Amino acid sequence: MTDQNPAHRAAAIPAEEAVKLQPVAQFGNHTPLRLDSGAELASIRIAYQTYGTLNDDKSNVVLVCHALTGDQFVASRHPITGKPGWWETMVGPGRPVDTNRFYVICTNIIGGCMGTTGPMDTNPATGKPYGLKFPVITVADMVRAQAKLLDQLGIEDLFCVLGGSLGGMQVLRWAASYPERVFSAIPIATATRHSSQNIAFHEVGRQAIMADRDWHGGDYQSRATRPRKGLAVARMAAHITYLSGQALHRKFGRNLQDRDALTFGFEADFQIESYLRHQGFTFVDRFDANSYLYITRAMDYFDLDADYDGIIANAFKGTKTRFCVVSFTSDWLFPTSEARHIVQALNAVAANVSFVEIESDKGHDAFLLDEPEMFSTLAGFINSAAVHRGLAKAE
Amino acid sequence: MTDQNPAHRAAAIPAEEAVKLQPVAQFGNHTPLRLDSGAELASIRIAYQTYGTLNDDKSNVVLVCHALTGDQFVASRHPITGKPGWWETMVGPGRPVDTNRFYVICTNIIGGCMGTTGPMDTNPATGKPYGLKFPVITVADMVRAQAKLLDQLGIEDLFCVLGGSLGGMQVLRWAASYPERVFSAIPIATATRHSSQNIAFHEVGRQAIMADRDWHGGDYQSRATRPRKGLAVARMAAHITYLSGQALHRKFGRNLQDRDALTFGFEADFQIESYLRHQGFTFVDRFDANSYLYITRAMDYFDLDADYDGIIANAFKGTKTRFCVVSFTSDWLFPTSEARHIVQALNAVAANVSFVEIESDKGHDAFLLDEPEMFSTLAGFINSAAVHRGLAKAE
Repeated sequence: MTDQNPAHRAAAIPAEEAVKLQPVAQFGNHTPLRLDSGAELASIRIAYQTYGTLNDDKSNVVLVCHALTGDQFVASRHPITGKPGWWETMVGPGRPVDTNRFYVICTNIIGGCMGTTGPMDTNPATGKPYGLKFPVITVADMVRAQAKLLDQLGIEDLFCVLGGSLGGMQVLRWAASYPERVFSAIPIATATRHSSQNIAFHEVGRQAIMADRDWHGGDYQSRATRPRKGLAVARMAAHITYLSGQALHRKFGRNLQDRDALTFGFEADFQIESYLRHQGFTFVDRFDANSYLYITRAMDYFDLDADYDGIIANAFKGTKTRFCVVSFTSDWLFPTSEARHIVQALNAVAANVSFVEIESDKGHDAFLLDEPEMFSTLAGFINSAAVHRGLAKAE
Repeated sequence: MTDQNPAHRAAAIPAEEAVKLQPVAQFGNHTPLRLDSGAELASIRIAYQTYGTLNDDKSNVVLVCHALTGDQFVASRHPITGKPGWWETMVGPGRPVDTNRFYVICTNIIGGCMGTTGPMDTNPATGKPYGLKFPVITVADMVRAQAKLLDQLGIEDLFCVLGGSLGGMQVLRWAASYPERVFSAIPIATATRHSSQNIAFHEVGRQAIMADRDWHGGDYQSRATRPRKGLAVARMAAHITYLSGQALHRKFGRNLQDRDALTFGFEADFQIESYLRHQGFTFVDRFDANSYLYITRAMDYFDLDADYDGIIANAFKGTKTRFCVVSFTSDWLFPTSEARHIVQALNAVAANVSFVEIESDKGHDAFLLDEPEMFSTLAGFINSAAVHRGLAKAE
């Protein structure tokens, strides 16, 4: 069954369109990106967005790191879905990350599908789309690519780097790899290594994609098809893990969808079923299945503890970065115990660290939602860091 | 891709084989099974196993109700997998459900795939396999079929009915529908209604099956194929929910499978991935995909509260049944709050109820595993009930 709707064939943004649509940085063969796997990407492209104005001494740069299915459109309209930026509550004029004061950069990560080099790109070695020939990338590789972009933009250091989930992993990697370039860091709803349960959920998603006959071993682009159903199932499974049982109970309970009684069939009788199906099938219009494989793999591979021989504190030895670690009470994907593990490591090296566990029933997704306590906490932390950095508060 | 391995084509046990292999009860057209949906199954077959000896006054009958992917082989070798019975730790000579004292019956539920009438059966109206023409069944339908079997066997009442998960739902339905037939009841790791989160996970599993092109709208039997990959993904997703995060961390952590280093690919680098894949792909050899759809649907539809107009206590009004409600601390599929809801309903009608929350890190699956506190609790409860029933302890 080939998808007949041309709109459905457009997986995210093809490279050539991306180049036209947004700021992109190109890196030629003279500056290859060396990857943790040992492979090199000879030529890479990084798509990004910026918000606010860079000050004269380039001391007001905030890097926002996006999560698994996020992108660079943190505070501006998404070009495919037409929806507002994914973190407009956090980033914008007068927001905790105030674009009247700060120059905000958000890059699409390596391996992504919104303009940055990823498995949808043409493999220079074959002239065909990479597909599964794209090298497996890591969180450190994502961070390395971001550092390359900053170098090209002439930005030496970051006033702040922040992000949730995979974004938080990038924050931790930034702080560990480039301590001198990070004045303050806000890892939210994240961990220093991906848990067994989280790897398990990712593996289910990957198997769902790979089980779809339209996946064709990753080579679906050249066959003008896409593993839509498999990717939708992957998204549905993942989406449940982003919410808490309480939130699902509160939002949906056992409410029926557009009907008064059970149908005794397999339609979406329950609102939760209808909601999940919608989540799955809208996701595939904006995301590439192979990118999903690569980015979940990068998260699974993330293990900062192992990178420092099991002594996580060594990742932050001598750090001068100011940290604010945030977790949510009902986040069962990255529970508060993971945040405590980060905080303990930072305390062990006498780092400057605040830690806030926010009471919320919204689960992992809380970091993307309207959480006043998170906003006030981060506004306070960022303002205090700005004062220490000598960045006067804008009037 | 048609499966070339004949062993893989054998989905569970075909009806004609089932009839030869095991005790089955046949019910002809004169006693149709009326279903909650309004449909009737004119002719049904119930496959079951028995253990122990029925006493003279038929007062020592224990009905064990199996869970979603269970079957009647509770305490004897499984004819397909060759593995021991699924609850041999609980049921057998000298076990808490002591087959030296009790006559144990376990039936394959309606909708199942181990000999009892289900979607694999021939639809008498068409002469072809039912597939999705099989009527949607409910937990009450399962219980009604079991009651029919007891009638045929001349068994008026049950000394005890017990089971975990979906088995526990059947226990609750037995106690509500046939209070006079149930002397004691042990609902384990269960709930009076399936939660939104649980419906969500089931829906993911169903969508995974339906996304498999070999599913053919449920009509795969007549095409000599099976939705193996989809069913495996469904099982993998479900399997994660049966375990706790702690148990996964303890058993697997981030350990690598048969390798010393990450491969930077999509093979099962991690033990948890290898384990899950194994769980998925062995499951499809013993289970039918359509049965999986029907049984998950029955669980989703289970809502004893709604059946009694939202006043769950009314389900048990005037009950003389002795209850023992069991939950496990790390079960996040049927958390202790669900058990408390049952207990509160029973207390509201001054029922005889014991409640035990067992400390375990093994998650929902704990009820199937070696949990000494569960065994001693149930042995004590059953023995005490037996004394009240006038069943002398066997010497």
